[in-house]
Amino acid sequence: MTSDLPVLIAAVSTLSALHLAFQARRVGWSRMKYKISPPTVTGPPEFERTFRAHQNSVEMYSIFLVVMWISGIFFNEVLAALGGLVYIVGREMYFIGYIHESKKRLPGFYLVLCALLFLTVMAAMGIIQSFLDKYLNIRLL
Amino acid sequence: MTSDLPVLIAAVSTLSALHLAFQARRVGWSRMKYKISPPTVTGPPEFERTFRAHQNSVEMYSIFLVVMWISGIFFNEVLAALGGLVYIVGREMYFIGYIHESKKRLPGFYLVLCALLFLTVMAAMGIIQSFLDKYLNIRLL
Amino acid sequence: MTSDLPVLIAAVSTLSALHLAFQARRVGWSRMKYKISPPTVTGPPEFERTFRAHQNSVEMYSIFLVVMWISGIFFNEVLAALGGLVYIVGREMYFIGYIHESKKRLPGFYLVLCALLFLTVMAAMGIIQSFLDKYLNIRLL
Repeated sequence: MTSDLPVLIAAVSTLSALHLAFQARRVGWSRMKYKISPPTVTGPPEFERTFRAHQNSVEMYSIFLVVMWISGIFFNEVLAALGGLVYIVGREMYFIGYIHESKKRLPGFYLVLCALLFLTVMAAMGIIQSFLDKYLNIRLL
Repeated sequence: MTSDLPVLIAAVSTLSALHLAFQARRVGWSRMKYKISPPTVTGPPEFERTFRAHQNSVEMYSIFLVVMWISGIFFNEVLAALGGLVYIVGREMYFIGYIHESKKRLPGFYLVLCALLFLTVMAAMGIIQSFLDKYLNIRLL
Repeated sequence: MTSDLPVLIAAVSTLSALHLAFQARRVGWSRMKYKISPPTVTGPPEFERTFRAHQNSVEMYSIFLVVMWISGIFFNEVLAALGGLVYIVGREMYFIGYIHESKKRLPGFYLVLCALLFLTVMAAMGIIQSFLDKYLNIRLL
């Protein structure tokens, strides 16, 4: 029954969810280190960078899930899962870099953008192909 | 294989993801304009309104995706996709209005709420219909 | 057609989306009570706790959806839906507790973590089972 479900996309999604939870955990550790109790979200620069690094992941997470799932289902599951893994690596680079210095978030950020661009292009191609097939009966490839 | 997948919902989802990314991009442009480097999130009123306009979209984006996909799969794909397009238009009105003046975010906000209400009602009807069919063997319509 | 779709997961998702929207609504009411107009997000402690309680829900909402849907589709729909209901109860306890006092958010927070752990373990087991079946032709159970 589950044999045609996109298990690779599911695996990368679960991994990315755990990674996002781990970022939230590290914000909590930074709160303890600098003794900043919720609901305060301001404090020493390192805490604020850690807080914002996690927030940026939250802001982009739904975008990532949308384009990974759509490219995985409508275009190619293996490529979408690989794009998803690159995205997670980029997010970790972003997080670690940002904590050290604002500018050091940029290499990870560019890797994240590359992964999202790759997934978005595949999603768009999959949607066009599926739309032509379903509504106009035109089969590409 | 992909011919019974909800390609219209996938297309509107991808469009909405690009729109959310474009809002994030405009926050970045506002950062440049007012020379506000991350992780700072406070500054001149226009920057703060731009920042919050994007945040509000982030806060509501998952809610939107949930009700659009469920109404599209369980009720009617074309109506769900149309509701999704109205939502995106509302979000753009909200964003542009909010940048100019806090109160000007309201027309877009009400359009967003209308779209979400429309999608939620369809999702609820689709769920009830599917639940009755699956568990009680009752077929409405 | 819709009879093998995970309608229980869809129902709990829609409920959780409405609950998240209701939290946003209560932030709006807190704005009115303390006369804090957008885009301001600082003010009296009770307002700031209400604001952060909602933000925390937003931050974790996508994680919740990912593990509930994957555990529901790849492992067991009824258990995943129950885990989802526990998550929503935990979020409400978190929200109400946090508004009264920062420390009172903790019981709800632990319940939320238990629900997410439960869903994540089921998601992981479902993924492993499905992966072995699909790529290695090994059927567990």
